[in-house]
Amino acid sequence: MSQYQPPLSDIRFLLDNVFPLATHVRDCNMDLELDTALAVVEEAGKLAADCLDPINRSGDMEHAQWVDSQVATPSGFKDAYRAFCEGGWNGLKFPAPYGGQELPKVVATLVEEMWFATNLSFAMCPSLTNGAIEALLIAGSEELKARYLPKLVSGEWSGTMNLTEPQAGSDLAAIKTKAMPQADGTYRLFGQKIFISFGEHDLTDNIIHLVLARTPDAPPGVKGISLFVAPKFLVNADGSPGSRNDVRCGSIEHKMGIRASPTAVMLYGETDGAVGHLVGEENRGIEYMFIMMNDARFAVGLQGLAISERAYQHALSYAEERVQGKPVNEDGSLGTTILRHPDVRRLLLSMKSHIEAMRSLAMYVAMQKDIAHSALSAEARRAAQERIELLTPVMKGWLTETAQCVTYDALQVFGGMGFIEETGAAQYYRDARIITIYEGTTAIQANDIVGRKTIRDKGAAASSLLDEILETSRKLQLLGRPSASRLADRLVSGCASLRTAIKWLLDENTKNPRAVYASAVPYLELWGVVCGGWMHGLRLVGINKGKMQSDEIAAREASAEFFSEHVLVGATALETTILHGASAAVDYPDTQWRR
Amino acid sequence: MSQYQPPLSDIRFLLDNVFPLATHVRDCNMDLELDTALAVVEEAGKLAADCLDPINRSGDMEHAQWVDSQVATPSGFKDAYRAFCEGGWNGLKFPAPYGGQELPKVVATLVEEMWFATNLSFAMCPSLTNGAIEALLIAGSEELKARYLPKLVSGEWSGTMNLTEPQAGSDLAAIKTKAMPQADGTYRLFGQKIFISFGEHDLTDNIIHLVLARTPDAPPGVKGISLFVAPKFLVNADGSPGSRNDVRCGSIEHKMGIRASPTAVMLYGETDGAVGHLVGEENRGIEYMFIMMNDARFAVGLQGLAISERAYQHALSYAEERVQGKPVNEDGSLGTTILRHPDVRRLLLSMKSHIEAMRSLAMYVAMQKDIAHSALSAEARRAAQERIELLTPVMKGWLTETAQCVTYDALQVFGGMGFIEETGAAQYYRDARIITIYEGTTAIQANDIVGRKTIRDKGAAASSLLDEILETSRKLQLLGRPSASRLADRLVSGCASLRTAIKWLLDENTKNPRAVYASAVPYLELWGVVCGGWMHGLRLVGINKGKMQSDEIAAREASAEFFSEHVLVGATALETTILHGASAAVDYPDTQWRR
Repeated sequence: MSQYQPPLSDIRFLLDNVFPLATHVRDCNMDLELDTALAVVEEAGKLAADCLDPINRSGDMEHAQWVDSQVATPSGFKDAYRAFCEGGWNGLKFPAPYGGQELPKVVATLVEEMWFATNLSFAMCPSLTNGAIEALLIAGSEELKARYLPKLVSGEWSGTMNLTEPQAGSDLAAIKTKAMPQADGTYRLFGQKIFISFGEHDLTDNIIHLVLARTPDAPPGVKGISLFVAPKFLVNADGSPGSRNDVRCGSIEHKMGIRASPTAVMLYGETDGAVGHLVGEENRGIEYMFIMMNDARFAVGLQGLAISERAYQHALSYAEERVQGKPVNEDGSLGTTILRHPDVRRLLLSMKSHIEAMRSLAMYVAMQKDIAHSALSAEARRAAQERIELLTPVMKGWLTETAQCVTYDALQVFGGMGFIEETGAAQYYRDARIITIYEGTTAIQANDIVGRKTIRDKGAAASSLLDEILETSRKLQLLGRPSASRLADRLVSGCASLRTAIKWLLDENTKNPRAVYASAVPYLELWGVVCGGWMHGLRLVGINKGKMQSDEIAAREASAEFFSEHVLVGATALETTILHGASAAVDYPDTQWRR
Repeated sequence: MSQYQPPLSDIRFLLDNVFPLATHVRDCNMDLELDTALAVVEEAGKLAADCLDPINRSGDMEHAQWVDSQVATPSGFKDAYRAFCEGGWNGLKFPAPYGGQELPKVVATLVEEMWFATNLSFAMCPSLTNGAIEALLIAGSEELKARYLPKLVSGEWSGTMNLTEPQAGSDLAAIKTKAMPQADGTYRLFGQKIFISFGEHDLTDNIIHLVLARTPDAPPGVKGISLFVAPKFLVNADGSPGSRNDVRCGSIEHKMGIRASPTAVMLYGETDGAVGHLVGEENRGIEYMFIMMNDARFAVGLQGLAISERAYQHALSYAEERVQGKPVNEDGSLGTTILRHPDVRRLLLSMKSHIEAMRSLAMYVAMQKDIAHSALSAEARRAAQERIELLTPVMKGWLTETAQCVTYDALQVFGGMGFIEETGAAQYYRDARIITIYEGTTAIQANDIVGRKTIRDKGAAASSLLDEILETSRKLQLLGRPSASRLADRLVSGCASLRTAIKWLLDENTKNPRAVYASAVPYLELWGVVCGGWMHGLRLVGINKGKMQSDEIAAREASAEFFSEHVLVGATALETTILHGASAAVDYPDTQWRR
């Protein structure tokens, strides 16, 4: 196994040259020096490399273990979690009144990448706690916030999200869990939830479950779902721990990846019902969930970047060590590594070029989150929120799909050794497989960008973003460098393809909406490749010729050129697929699937 | 788990309409009725469905077990192997004098698809025996053939291929295993081989190892490697079993997939050396291996088709049962399955369309093998051999890469359930991951089609195939149907892209060969998509409007249209990638990989 190296130099380039932090914090009315931000990131990198990375493979082998309704996490997870909380990492981005450090989202994002990179199974626990904190911040009463937030922010307690049921996966309208109101204002919950990550574990003293359920008189469908908070151990009014609640882990799943993380079946109300408190108002649970979901989906996209970075570093280490064959047109003297083979270089640069695009996009969106939250101007906040909503399905959908390719390529660099579990490359590939599924599959993201993010405003938010991308392409042309000009041309072409696709979506939706949704995933992919190309454009524009070494400039240019000529080049074909590829699937005769 | 259904109706369509068997057997001077061939295939399908499919998932869970140099295969494997041999399936395509049935390769191919589809781990054992039989047929003395072939053909004994060593993976020139000549004409082998599939197991009484090794005075590199046969148990001159040879299984690997198949470390000559007999002449081992390799690589490509078919059927069964959500623009009455969701249809048709292209290509190449072997005309045999050599890297490279996408999509249809091992979708995805690696990685296939199959003859064989594809596009235009015409146009464009790419390869190879090999995988992929489109073209041409029902015709047209608008449409971008995408990777500054 290689040692994880935090991607500090790419982060410095981004915060210094591409998306200058100084400007950003001023726009957001915040106060943070670049050096301070980098020091935080570096410190997190040390914890990730020294503490989480070494228990990633062992955690995969040991699995989470379920015995008598209890879950034991793998060796080392308790100590790592203690170090994580003691370092204050759990509350990095949360409000100071609850014990958080109120650092900008962009810094929290850079730090979270490292947790996900080094130990996705482990990092899911604090990530889910984040979700619970967000839900309570969005809609919790002051009483609930006071009761739960301090210990969730410190990490003393963890949080979970309970949405899925056997008959209700992507379709939350089918949720059946019941919430029966009690005379004292509480509710009693009855039902079964599945796929509950860290629904049960041994890292914290209490687990705070956020649960979607229906009250007896609720209307059918998603408009009749409410959000409840139901802790594993009831909490007395003075904050002291109370008795065990009527919620229990029924079993945990045997999964293809993220095997150190327990995925629980949760049984609510086997006897007299699990005590729950309503969060916000009745029947508005899905609404709160969707506000929070922007953050959760962003986080899963970030997992795609993170696991790609880790898999890349692992493959690179092997390519730098493994001696095999005589590379084409090289002397082939003894000791020439496979890094000199042209196709290994292609694989590695493909990974690196995608990773750089992904990290840039994640930082861009994280900065929009800071702006939407903190900018003084209401118009700036509104514009940022619009941008976040458009790009969230791209962050989730495109980064997670891209991570499949990157972890695939990383394994391929190892050849036969990659297929052997001891090597570790297989784990990244297996772990990554869940991220295009949970928090909404790629199709769900695609439906979101088609329906809510494009058709609903008739393409207005999309058009505004495309204008900004074209502005970048003009700046690229001004650089006067051939590869920048070629990237600029491809961006112009990619934006034109998106405009054509949007026009088609809007038009076709009035005639044949099923075709529109059969083209949703290719449409999402088109956004991904254009945004990735845009990010490489911004990176080229950000090159500071005076300050940067020629090798670094050459590398950033090569990475952008690779993206342009291997990825963005596919935009035109995607446009064709969107416009002409749908009807075959929609109209396929159902009698013939088995022939 | 779903029940495997042999793809009989597609096979009938192919053998009746697309590549008529009657013409084929006449051309090959063979005698086989269509109904007889279909009866053989159907019988094999029953064994696959009833006997191999049911022990696929249990075999994955149980793994092959290694204890004291012995390997136990999972429960049910011994019985299945006995049934397999008793049915005569092991010797289907081999010469009658050794007990084979001499059926055409095309029939053997259709049958082998079913073994690989239902139990890849199991089917590797007879597939490796096939390789050993081929090696002995190619180069073995009459004495060796008489000693080993009857029991290999019957399946009483199994065979293995011993190429890889720790320092010699893709690079066979680095092989170190020694072969010391003895006074009696035999050799003694000393060395360690790794990744030896079915190197040790409990299905047969003897295991016949084919081993690459070096004699003491051999020249360095691949020209100093010889091929030896070394059985687990020595065989007396009269054929009776003799003493244990000095070869032992040192351990087996813990793999990501095909876990029921033992992948052995083999230790030769721990004491006085493993007794081996030279196969053919000294120092010609690689040459024999490469003749045989065409068959082995073809078989691995076939595995890609097979596992895709099985994963597709499994996903389809789930899509037909799982009720979830209200499909766009449908009434959404209770009981509507996810098969009605546009994106699920896109995933399923993508799988089906690729599978149909893959199976057609496999049948086409298998028929070329029959022709190369049996046609009366020497010119026909030569042309077929040329075609086989060009298309073998496409069969291996493109079908195995495509299988990654198909098994990925199949898992995606299941959503979260796909990530749970009990569902079975994860196993197909994990099993499939090895096939782009073993028998030569995708990069090795790509280097082969660039170097040996395109540059060496200056594109002559490629040009001849492109002429034939254009002939198909002319026939498509004559059909007078819009989707056929669009496919024809895309085929013309794809062939033009290939010609441009070939011209670039030939030209660039004299100036910058490293760039040529950095474009090798995209070049291979371009061949794959054009050949896939060609196959769909041949299928459309083969439609018999008089005999086929309108639903079937509509389905075949939709499948071809899908391939055209989702896959073949990407040919132009691949051309650009080949011509302009290489230098970034080749010239990337080595100081910057870690920044």
